[in-house]
Amino acid sequence: MTVTYPLLNAIDSPADLRALDRKQLPALAKELRQFLIESVSRTGGHLSSNLGTVELTIALHYVFNTPDDRIVWDVGHQTYGHKVLTGRRARMPTLRKYQGMSGFPRRCESEYDTFGTAHSSTSISAALGMAVAARNRGEDRRAIAVIGDGAMSAGMAFEALNNAGDMRDVNLLVILNDNEMSISPPVGALTQILARLMTGRTVSAARRAGGKMLGVAPPMLDFARRVEEHVKGLVTPGTLFEEFGFNYIGPIDGHDLDALLPTLHNLRKLDGPHFLHVVTRKGQGYKLAEADPILYHGVSTFDHTEGIKSSGKSGGKLSYTQVFSDWLCDIAAQDKRVVGITPAMREGSGLVRFAEEYPDRYYDVGIAEQHALTFAAGLAADGMKPVVAIYSTFLQRAYDQYIHDIALQNLPVVFAIDRAGLVGADGATHHGAYDLSYLTCIPNLVLMAPADENECRQMLYTAHCHDGPSAVRYPRGSGMGVTPDKAMTAYPIGKAELRRSGKKIALLAFGAMLKPALEVGEQLDATVVNMRFIKPLDSALILELAQTHELIVTIEENAVIGGAGSEVSRVLEAAPAPVRTLRLGLPDRFIDHGEQAQLLAEVGLDAEGIRKAITAVYPANS
Amino acid sequence: MTVTYPLLNAIDSPADLRALDRKQLPALAKELRQFLIESVSRTGGHLSSNLGTVELTIALHYVFNTPDDRIVWDVGHQTYGHKVLTGRRARMPTLRKYQGMSGFPRRCESEYDTFGTAHSSTSISAALGMAVAARNRGEDRRAIAVIGDGAMSAGMAFEALNNAGDMRDVNLLVILNDNEMSISPPVGALTQILARLMTGRTVSAARRAGGKMLGVAPPMLDFARRVEEHVKGLVTPGTLFEEFGFNYIGPIDGHDLDALLPTLHNLRKLDGPHFLHVVTRKGQGYKLAEADPILYHGVSTFDHTEGIKSSGKSGGKLSYTQVFSDWLCDIAAQDKRVVGITPAMREGSGLVRFAEEYPDRYYDVGIAEQHALTFAAGLAADGMKPVVAIYSTFLQRAYDQYIHDIALQNLPVVFAIDRAGLVGADGATHHGAYDLSYLTCIPNLVLMAPADENECRQMLYTAHCHDGPSAVRYPRGSGMGVTPDKAMTAYPIGKAELRRSGKKIALLAFGAMLKPALEVGEQLDATVVNMRFIKPLDSALILELAQTHELIVTIEENAVIGGAGSEVSRVLEAAPAPVRTLRLGLPDRFIDHGEQAQLLAEVGLDAEGIRKAITAVYPANS
Repeated sequence: MTVTYPLLNAIDSPADLRALDRKQLPALAKELRQFLIESVSRTGGHLSSNLGTVELTIALHYVFNTPDDRIVWDVGHQTYGHKVLTGRRARMPTLRKYQGMSGFPRRCESEYDTFGTAHSSTSISAALGMAVAARNRGEDRRAIAVIGDGAMSAGMAFEALNNAGDMRDVNLLVILNDNEMSISPPVGALTQILARLMTGRTVSAARRAGGKMLGVAPPMLDFARRVEEHVKGLVTPGTLFEEFGFNYIGPIDGHDLDALLPTLHNLRKLDGPHFLHVVTRKGQGYKLAEADPILYHGVSTFDHTEGIKSSGKSGGKLSYTQVFSDWLCDIAAQDKRVVGITPAMREGSGLVRFAEEYPDRYYDVGIAEQHALTFAAGLAADGMKPVVAIYSTFLQRAYDQYIHDIALQNLPVVFAIDRAGLVGADGATHHGAYDLSYLTCIPNLVLMAPADENECRQMLYTAHCHDGPSAVRYPRGSGMGVTPDKAMTAYPIGKAELRRSGKKIALLAFGAMLKPALEVGEQLDATVVNMRFIKPLDSALILELAQTHELIVTIEENAVIGGAGSEVSRVLEAAPAPVRTLRLGLPDRFIDHGEQAQLLAEVGLDAEGIRKAITAVYPANS
Repeated sequence: MTVTYPLLNAIDSPADLRALDRKQLPALAKELRQFLIESVSRTGGHLSSNLGTVELTIALHYVFNTPDDRIVWDVGHQTYGHKVLTGRRARMPTLRKYQGMSGFPRRCESEYDTFGTAHSSTSISAALGMAVAARNRGEDRRAIAVIGDGAMSAGMAFEALNNAGDMRDVNLLVILNDNEMSISPPVGALTQILARLMTGRTVSAARRAGGKMLGVAPPMLDFARRVEEHVKGLVTPGTLFEEFGFNYIGPIDGHDLDALLPTLHNLRKLDGPHFLHVVTRKGQGYKLAEADPILYHGVSTFDHTEGIKSSGKSGGKLSYTQVFSDWLCDIAAQDKRVVGITPAMREGSGLVRFAEEYPDRYYDVGIAEQHALTFAAGLAADGMKPVVAIYSTFLQRAYDQYIHDIALQNLPVVFAIDRAGLVGADGATHHGAYDLSYLTCIPNLVLMAPADENECRQMLYTAHCHDGPSAVRYPRGSGMGVTPDKAMTAYPIGKAELRRSGKKIALLAFGAMLKPALEVGEQLDATVVNMRFIKPLDSALILELAQTHELIVTIEENAVIGGAGSEVSRVLEAAPAPVRTLRLGLPDRFIDHGEQAQLLAEVGLDAEGIRKAITAVYPANS
């Protein structure tokens, strides 16, 4: 079925959009929505969130003078429509592909991408910075942050509200895109506050929003009915955001251009900080996604006329996430002290089954990594065994809490660090490229990286048995295909595993790098060690190898700066004579998106790259 | 003048306190306050905050069954009274001294210190963890977080409120100690919200708080009068915290035991999450501190009968903070794009003069490091030149924002990182021990450390001239005593300075370590290099030294793991033959409090320690 897009095809920039008659916009929205469904079903990517923001995207570019007016899209995975309308329609087939268009806004990609986003809850801070810059430079422009209700649970959004609401003379518009969902369903008191706003305000808010009654569309009524169950009592509407100093307007229907356009039009003329509450539905306009927005949150390629078919496990292999998921339920059955904590990543971190089986020991704290860690520290201080499931890149959000509340107090918190190393299509913002560096410099941690699925399970158990902070970091996706033993046995702390005895060259592999290391070991007849522990290192073995080999090579899927190899070379300072070393890891630049294998090859962390790097410094005839 | 403390001297634990008649407590408060004034005037330490919490501390230990009930003191510098009442009165003369009692609560120091604190805003998260632990273990105990109004501006406090307010079945009491001041006067919308609560609630709140009218003391009336100027209109009282799901009670007078005791008594019997708003005055009961609570926030030793005498600059030397302060004003005069940002550390970071001279370009964003950095990124994205003044230890709070919003986008934000290295009396929580490690692993940064005051100024200018993220990290206190040149000249990026030509051994010193390195260089006739740049390193010089020396020693006041020395040894991988190296830096353990010189000697980073470490691996007769 070929569909043509007569309106959309004529839009190469927002100027073309603004040349349309307002009456044409609903038809454009229909085309854009259909285009996104078709395009994303062919490339994979984020779907539900983009379908939910079709009308808002059109309305913003229609009313505001972009890119002179700045739009900052929080999280940024809802910007496909924005990309299509800002001259990048033809690049959509390259979305999230190697050397193709990013799935997030990027300053280097377009002048309309005013601020790169991907991690949640940065938009208000960034837009406030832009609004202050405009004021200080005497430029008459607007800065707009578009932020989801899930992202509002992160503390930095409140820090920004607290700061912005106090500045009466900056032209900042915060648009809360309230779709009652982050990636997982939202949690926390804020969810209920927003629900109360929705029931308490609809009519009067619409009146304030441009003297126009809100045409409440049927989906909105469903919403209102559902949230009413939660409502304990009405409060003064808008209070929360008005208390922070914003002029609160809403909620309005984010799929109704007749509500959006006049409201935005009026807001464009007003100075000072304003807060517009827009209600949308994830997956809007695509029945399958409306029915299961979580399934359609991030999709692989699929037939959009039939919908996503259950694919089971990837190629029959367990993912590391699944290994963790099973382990957590198994250990929880054995040890009542175990509790599981996630900052709003129930699905991604593999906590769905645990949440079902142990609802009283499961804590989704919202997008709130800082709180997640100190909450875990409090639990550990009083005898519980908290397990924090977190992506490597998001653990960066709670670095100080890790140092100050967990490591310094030597509290037994277990970290299951998922998506460590290169994650693929999400790109630079999501690679887990730094955890070995930023964690090893802090005292007290036992830090492990599994080379296969069984090691992942056994290391999690090792972590559980350790009376102090511990972490297991594992990559996105599946590993070697080893089926984990049901039995759990703790590894001796700080002991590596010799996997191959060779000559002259010793390859010290950390985690998933064991696989290419073993290949290279065969090719070069090198010794290969599965290091298992990044901290503490197996110093005795390292020093032994130094006396029997001419070159020590460390291989890790982490920044080569400050990572595991860095400590290996420090251990080698104690060798009787200086030893030649070669540290391999991620280079000192940000790495874009693409398939994991493509990226590993690009940075020389596949077998071929490793072999080449070694032979460059240590020719075969040495 | 000798004062005796008949009541206080009989209290060796809260059990003794609880044996007192309630009528004796005002007299005890008077004794405790006087004791704290005398004791702190002899040791130095935090004064204003401790005087403000005398009655609250007594009331909490009197009403609650500590340590079974858990008190978590946010920030923790207000716990001297708590320490005195929990068996540590005799140790007060050792406060903050080497091997003496910590100025913060520490789990290893007392069972009454249920959770170590020092960085702001962790208490609600930790206490919630404890409350959940109690519920899950079936233990009937209370968890109490005592948090200041300044600390409430940090996002993680909101993350915790959002999570806790949603848990109806945990026994958590949050006490907001509202003294209208963090270290600097508070900022942001929340300040105004609290001010509105104070004017709107006093009478009705007191009625709810135990059926007792609040006796509004004269200081409270002053308060109310002052805040009324800010009040735009009354709102439904208590709304903000009640919206988050807490039962809000207050505000009550935190110096009135007749208000505190019955309120706490009632709260102890109630289940679920409660929020008590207590109003106190920093410095209460000591006229000089009441009049200038900022001056008496953190004090050196002084005569408490006469008060603090202006001491001028420390020993005639400029502090690095002062060098920064002067530079910022000078560069702001030259370049209108410069703006200064501080997360609530106007005094500590040296921004007082800038705030006075450039009020429109000065941003105190509150205790909100995450927002501070992304706000800076937004400013930089739109053509400003933001300078973020921040302590090394607090930059940990914004690590992800540094990576995701600044480094990844290569935005020209200048970081003035103060208190880098060992800070002294504040101890383990405040040492700036990790910044070189956690920053060098991230691409795009130019990172410098000055060896003296003039270098600090020139490096700040170098940072200003660089079109990308840059940082200058400098220690607490004064340096070599070099008067900075008025003229500003940028250093060539990545070039080190050869300071002494010697034989066999090359000492590569980073920042303040140049001073002891020069001493050792004389003793051992070693080459000494002032590295200046941690990133990029002067690779050419390092490789040249490798060919002319037998041992390369790196010396840095940062964790030896993953720091500057780590990258030096990676550069040396390119040397024609392997070179012996020795990395000196902070050891892999947390370092307690004491004077900077004592601590540096302890970890072997004074001249003697450096010499010993070198001669241990490279005897003089090598």
